[in-house]
Amino acid sequence: MVKATRAGPAPARPGQGGERQSVGARRSVASEQAILDAAEALLLEKGYAGFSIEAVARLARAGKPTIYRWWPGKAALLLDVYHRQKREPPPDETAPIEEALVRFLRHLFDFWRTGPAGDIFRAIVAEAQSDPDARRALVAYLAERRAVFTAMIERRRARGETELPPDAALLWDSLIGFAWCRLLAFDLAADDGEIRRYVHQVATGFRPG
Amino acid sequence: MVKATRAGPAPARPGQGGERQSVGARRSVASEQAILDAAEALLLEKGYAGFSIEAVARLARAGKPTIYRWWPGKAALLLDVYHRQKREPPPDETAPIEEALVRFLRHLFDFWRTGPAGDIFRAIVAEAQSDPDARRALVAYLAERRAVFTAMIERRRARGETELPPDAALLWDSLIGFAWCRLLAFDLAADDGEIRRYVHQVATGFRPG
Repeated sequence: MVKATRAGPAPARPGQGGERQSVGARRSVASEQAILDAAEALLLEKGYAGFSIEAVARLARAGKPTIYRWWPGKAALLLDVYHRQKREPPPDETAPIEEALVRFLRHLFDFWRTGPAGDIFRAIVAEAQSDPDARRALVAYLAERRAVFTAMIERRRARGETELPPDAALLWDSLIGFAWCRLLAFDLAADDGEIRRYVHQVATGFRPG
Repeated sequence: MVKATRAGPAPARPGQGGERQSVGARRSVASEQAILDAAEALLLEKGYAGFSIEAVARLARAGKPTIYRWWPGKAALLLDVYHRQKREPPPDETAPIEEALVRFLRHLFDFWRTGPAGDIFRAIVAEAQSDPDARRALVAYLAERRAVFTAMIERRRARGETELPPDAALLWDSLIGFAWCRLLAFDLAADDGEIRRYVHQVATGFRPG
């Protein structure tokens, strides 16, 4: 539902976009893919603890400086891999907004529950509390996801859809706050019924007055 | 607003109450206070990194086994100190529920923003992602705070108040999810206006249909 469009050069990220953009012209998509593939393979094999820029560089047969030119640090690369693993379905912008939000949250909970993604994101959030690079990467990732969501709301609004939340950014923070809290408290049991109940109440409250 | 009543023996905590209850009769309130005072002083002086059961025992002139008899580990004792520092005003159960929620969130953001509490809670959440004791303590603390909140809603309901959220536990998870996310993403700038806007929308959505 909220997949970033990655056609063309990678989108600038708030707080770290400058560097990536300045080398955008020299950036090779094939090489970026090779690095992401290697990073994903490494993460799946070794887990969060065994993940390092050095090991990714070795596996991708790329130079460490090449990786650092495109990603400011380990956490930023990890978050790109993490997000790619999500394999979010293409946004269904014709579904009623409440249904779209249910699908988004259900996909996120499923993603965290099955496979290593939940533990990976837990580790990133934990590291961000003490490591400045991880913190910058996490804050940038959150800002990017929020921007993708509010842009989707604006596209719906431009097409004449009504009943959209006037305060989309705050609604986003509510949805992911709820999800984060459940993840970080190791309580991902929420079933479809509970997710629907939660989304229905929040979405009702955020409707235009 | 959601202060736990600590008169009499400490309340049992889900998941760790058994041990504490079984020694409740032998528990000395004066000695508990001395340990909490020492723990608080240590935390303020040395920060999260310098906090240990050993150092608290030395400062409180208590035996480590005494502390371990009452708190299952460092994280549980830390969370008790952290919560005591909150000094939440007594619950104003006559204020309209929406206003009470605004006051609660405002107090929490202020508490995290000023002094070391925000960093302490960040560190506890981070540690809970890899340390099983910290995880148990955090999950128990969350469950305790949720129970205090839903009990407050039930007291209001018993007094005949209407317009109360039927789904109080889920409303609680929304409120603290929002707060956690802002804390863990180092974004505590929310002012009174933003908190009111958030609470108003969420509380509206959680009103009885």
